[in-house]
Amino acid sequence: MRQSNSGLRFARALWCVLIVLPLLAQAADPLPGWREGPSRMAIMAFVEDVTTDGGPRHVEPAERIAVFDNDGTLWSEQPMYFELLFALDEVRRLAPEHPQWREEQPFKAVLENDQQALAAQGMDGLLKLVAATHSGMSTEQFTEVTRKWLASARHPRTGRPYTEMVFQPMLELLDYLRANGFKTYIVSGGEVAFMRAFAQEVYGIPPEQVIGTTLDATFEDQAGKPSIQRLPRIAHNDDGPGKPVSIEAFIGRRPVMAFGNSDGDLQMLQWTMAGQGARFAGLVHHTDQRREWAYDRKSHFGRLDVALDQAQAQGWTVVDMAREWRRIYPFDAQ
Amino acid sequence: MRQSNSGLRFARALWCVLIVLPLLAQAADPLPGWREGPSRMAIMAFVEDVTTDGGPRHVEPAERIAVFDNDGTLWSEQPMYFELLFALDEVRRLAPEHPQWREEQPFKAVLENDQQALAAQGMDGLLKLVAATHSGMSTEQFTEVTRKWLASARHPRTGRPYTEMVFQPMLELLDYLRANGFKTYIVSGGEVAFMRAFAQEVYGIPPEQVIGTTLDATFEDQAGKPSIQRLPRIAHNDDGPGKPVSIEAFIGRRPVMAFGNSDGDLQMLQWTMAGQGARFAGLVHHTDQRREWAYDRKSHFGRLDVALDQAQAQGWTVVDMAREWRRIYPFDAQ
Repeated sequence: MRQSNSGLRFARALWCVLIVLPLLAQAADPLPGWREGPSRMAIMAFVEDVTTDGGPRHVEPAERIAVFDNDGTLWSEQPMYFELLFALDEVRRLAPEHPQWREEQPFKAVLENDQQALAAQGMDGLLKLVAATHSGMSTEQFTEVTRKWLASARHPRTGRPYTEMVFQPMLELLDYLRANGFKTYIVSGGEVAFMRAFAQEVYGIPPEQVIGTTLDATFEDQAGKPSIQRLPRIAHNDDGPGKPVSIEAFIGRRPVMAFGNSDGDLQMLQWTMAGQGARFAGLVHHTDQRREWAYDRKSHFGRLDVALDQAQAQGWTVVDMAREWRRIYPFDAQ
Repeated sequence: MRQSNSGLRFARALWCVLIVLPLLAQAADPLPGWREGPSRMAIMAFVEDVTTDGGPRHVEPAERIAVFDNDGTLWSEQPMYFELLFALDEVRRLAPEHPQWREEQPFKAVLENDQQALAAQGMDGLLKLVAATHSGMSTEQFTEVTRKWLASARHPRTGRPYTEMVFQPMLELLDYLRANGFKTYIVSGGEVAFMRAFAQEVYGIPPEQVIGTTLDATFEDQAGKPSIQRLPRIAHNDDGPGKPVSIEAFIGRRPVMAFGNSDGDLQMLQWTMAGQGARFAGLVHHTDQRREWAYDRKSHFGRLDVALDQAQAQGWTVVDMAREWRRIYPFDAQ
């Protein structure tokens, strides 16, 4: 009787340790993809500060605005911005309708698959590609084109759809913030309609909380059928200093939290940190050559140089992807 | 005993009829400022349709976007747009710093109080006044200037602060929509920071749901003190066809409900009504010379001509202010 009792007690204890405790811990942990470390601690301390009623760093729910860059912050951006890969595919698809592209840069470089000539076109060339491939149709039509591409295109290295190459720890962070009353926004150099085509489904971020580079557009009413037509002109380049400017234009409040990964996010982080009260600035540092990519000061896409120095000087959170992220992508083994 | 019982019953019945029923009716009526009539009926039928789960015209909460013009729709706009009155006061206040304004239109007309010369400047002159008086400072500073003016300026006819000259029935409508899961937006020709200075307090509409005319802006970082400076150039004129374009840029969804009062709202209403499913287009028709103003096809501010014809042809809701609104302003007797 006594032996059997102690056996039962041991079995119960074992069950508790092996099964229940890990389950409870997992249920209670809003950030399972983040290893114990400085970034995870800083995020959780910030959220606790902001949400503690009556605390010295409490922030009203209406002011809990968190802004996220997209390329390199919420999803990967190598070997080049995914939207640029889309634009290159579109140039090839549309080339028969535009014979002049064979002689005109940056299109010529794309059609001749001349990487060097393409790189030489710089940001201007990139914006030209975006303008040409993202316009000449309504936003509804463009959304369809984008979704079709996202459904069929595969990343050259992983063979995965681009929408699966999102960062699992960042998805958890978005959920965690929203569960704590934050409004999560994308503020990205990506073109806004391109990102809106998948942001709700992939990030849980609705179209009205996606801010990006925009094209001029015109309202047309043909025979009582109104439409908004996208024009091949960049209206706003949402990069660098363009980010705080668009935050002011669209949100009209200063964020309390900002997350980026490159020098193009520096001004957004500066603007966020210059406000009063609780503030959080984070940078994703791509340090994981094995599971993702390792790059910073010399990268062509997502260069992180000045912002890295400033983050270190100011004590901003720099996420060491290789050390701090348990998983990179949702499809990685847990 | 019997008499006393019946007396008690009578007293109870009387109390019920005189006190409780009206109170209950009032508590149950979300739109007490709207008289029984076609507009009230159309609004309530639309909201019931949209919110009836499983109904043929049900709309998901995320898609319940309602957009409102401001001048003449949510508050009065006579004898001229209130923001223009602000700009005129600012020109006078700032004139000593701008001696050249004495010889330069439209400033000259303002400083000489020459109404005719001012009117001759048209929309271009108006935009010049807005650009000059709304720029040269940060948005924080401009918000302060606006709030100071709103706190001290009084309307020439009512002697009331401008923020009291808002339409009580429209305040009720905004509340009613929000209680039914709608997201309420302002989409107005007014400059966005001017409106954001009072929209939350007066309309319950947060800054990120205020869309309007915008100025160019620049991010500056002086000695580690970043600021966003407003430039004297109109970036977007949010009037007429500019309204559906800004709705697309900011919200990225087509509204299901739109309310305006002038030809400048026509394209916003057309764009809203061209969508699928339940739709509502409303126009406030200023028909009340006694309590507010009566004007439409020939008014200099808030002209309602083409849109009135289209509303009548399409069966859109046209609110007859004089007949359908029990109260105009919150300060009117109930």
